[in-house]
Amino acid sequence: MGRRAAIVGAGHTRFGVLDAGPRELLRSAADQAFASVDRGLDRGAVGEAFLATLGFGGWQIGNVSALLAEETGIVGIPTTRVENACASGGFALRAAVRSIESGAVDVALVVGLEKMTDVGNARRRYWLGVSGDTEWERAAGLTFAGVYGLIASRYLAEHRIGPEALAEVAVKNHANGALNPNAHFQKEVTREAVLRAPRVADPLGLYDCCPVSDGAAALLLVRAESARRFTDTPVYVEGVGAGSDRLAVQERPELTSFAASRRAADEAFRSAGCERTEVSFLEVHDCFTIAELVAIEDLGFAGPGEAASLTLEGTTRRTGRLPVNPDGGLKAKGHPIGATGVSQIYEVFLQLRRAAGARQVPSAERALVHNVGGAGATAAVTICAAG
Amino acid sequence: MGRRAAIVGAGHTRFGVLDAGPRELLRSAADQAFASVDRGLDRGAVGEAFLATLGFGGWQIGNVSALLAEETGIVGIPTTRVENACASGGFALRAAVRSIESGAVDVALVVGLEKMTDVGNARRRYWLGVSGDTEWERAAGLTFAGVYGLIASRYLAEHRIGPEALAEVAVKNHANGALNPNAHFQKEVTREAVLRAPRVADPLGLYDCCPVSDGAAALLLVRAESARRFTDTPVYVEGVGAGSDRLAVQERPELTSFAASRRAADEAFRSAGCERTEVSFLEVHDCFTIAELVAIEDLGFAGPGEAASLTLEGTTRRTGRLPVNPDGGLKAKGHPIGATGVSQIYEVFLQLRRAAGARQVPSAERALVHNVGGAGATAAVTICAAG
Repeated sequence: MGRRAAIVGAGHTRFGVLDAGPRELLRSAADQAFASVDRGLDRGAVGEAFLATLGFGGWQIGNVSALLAEETGIVGIPTTRVENACASGGFALRAAVRSIESGAVDVALVVGLEKMTDVGNARRRYWLGVSGDTEWERAAGLTFAGVYGLIASRYLAEHRIGPEALAEVAVKNHANGALNPNAHFQKEVTREAVLRAPRVADPLGLYDCCPVSDGAAALLLVRAESARRFTDTPVYVEGVGAGSDRLAVQERPELTSFAASRRAADEAFRSAGCERTEVSFLEVHDCFTIAELVAIEDLGFAGPGEAASLTLEGTTRRTGRLPVNPDGGLKAKGHPIGATGVSQIYEVFLQLRRAAGARQVPSAERALVHNVGGAGATAAVTICAAG
Repeated sequence: MGRRAAIVGAGHTRFGVLDAGPRELLRSAADQAFASVDRGLDRGAVGEAFLATLGFGGWQIGNVSALLAEETGIVGIPTTRVENACASGGFALRAAVRSIESGAVDVALVVGLEKMTDVGNARRRYWLGVSGDTEWERAAGLTFAGVYGLIASRYLAEHRIGPEALAEVAVKNHANGALNPNAHFQKEVTREAVLRAPRVADPLGLYDCCPVSDGAAALLLVRAESARRFTDTPVYVEGVGAGSDRLAVQERPELTSFAASRRAADEAFRSAGCERTEVSFLEVHDCFTIAELVAIEDLGFAGPGEAASLTLEGTTRRTGRLPVNPDGGLKAKGHPIGATGVSQIYEVFLQLRRAAGARQVPSAERALVHNVGGAGATAAVTICAAG
């Protein structure tokens, strides 16, 4: 297997409606990441830092990566903002892996951040809107919930099934989120409650949609060969893959599959040199419940329509054969845009070190992480394994 | 010397007030880059693409990198938006070099783009404002011209000199721009006209400030060892360096030097394994005339205050001992934010291939490119050499 880089530290703030501002959030996640390195990691050793964010709270957008160095006390090092909407975190991690693999730096810091809840509704809608297609979709009044509602309608119609599998995604992810002290929502929901909830974009109801959250997550990456200087339990990045697609959903040949996800997964598996059967669990981008079903299929873990039955059978539960989103997913853990892709890897870091506490996935050896930008115009996939 | 990657193709739109929208601009620059490869380069060979942009014309901001694949006909490949304000282009190039050096991809496309002139003044001011420090500087009403005006005042006072050297930067860069068919301003100005122009932020007048421009530039990078499959005259990226600093100028120990530029230059020279005496000419980030003087000093080509005398002596003219900004610089060529860093490398590509026509720098063998984000909170330096 490839060992492209190793994760030796990780930090995560609470996700939710938080009082803290963006500077404080990124500092908090990064401080935790440094503190988590078993044998310590001197901040002066960090060669480069990447910040994944879409809006940073609105008051500072351009050149904001410099604040990452400022707030973490490593002023001077190269900092880069990577922005691919909701996939910013996955692409920032990928950029950090490239820097380490190229031999340019020995240690890289990746922080994902979003502060969404004290931003005015108009500006927040603007941010989110401009991450979908603006020329056609936004002009036609189509929001992200609307796009995913269309995808869900089509999925249910193509496979001649009812909304129960969608609801079961929410039930499972809320159950997982209830065990995650960082999750935005830490309470279980019943299938009936999901199915009866107010409609947002039919067939998607309130519990089919992820919340608007604040939060940050941070990772410390080092060269694979030096990982054991920092910890006895590094987590290795074995493979990275990514893809893109036409921004406007109407320009694509199909609604119920994201070509960017398929390409990203294939590239990640080639890069890692492993097979799907060797993956213990998945972290997928479930911004809406339908997105989890589509992701499981696009990533090659189920055929078209089969993710619905896998979900209904309990295969994707934390204790199932293929756990999906043991941290609660975007659905229950929350979705602070730029933080999400980094937070997914944070979960993998805990799980593969057997440090996920009450929500530990049994026999977690290798994980696949899937992070999507917008409605599939960009996607990043990362494969990680225990040391 | 290091040969980290090779540039084998480059494209550039006209800079200025253009009718074309952002999609058309990026397509035009990329198409030119592909067409410029001497022995051709199949678009299918591109493994990854990077888009440098701050605002993309305002109507599409999040996830905009996907449009780069869409508009260039290479839908599916990984695309990443890199944003470090005015230094976005330099950092995007750096990310592409890392990807190639890591062995992950054989060919990378880098496009820088900004469409500024049909954006409302309020939104444009917002974009630019949020690239400086928002908490203190913007709240105090300090614009970028204001920040650079403070730097210029301090520089003139510290070195007990008048504004003539500032004016001479404008005179030189306008003279160079007059020979550049892509420049926003293609006319010469006199020192008297510069000194008599309306004040913008004393001691900076109208001709001390770069314009607000539309435009795009594109580069095609390949592995250094495969460069000659594409052309007999590749340009090699020998070294890359970058740095960061506190975002708010008030938080820094000095006004007349950018620590980020100094660090970026030192790293680039270490990375390239060459000396300053081996550099034939510079492309520096002259968003204001004072910025060119500060850059020449920060990059190690003059001691404190000496850039003023070098400039007055004509050393930095196109035919001088150390030509600076032979393309006219941001000052005359224009400054479409995300495009600038890529455009600087485009100029180096032409010059090092002896293809710069009327503005050719005599004996151009190696060039240093300096790209700054905001008022020095981020900076990237690239060193390139002829094959």
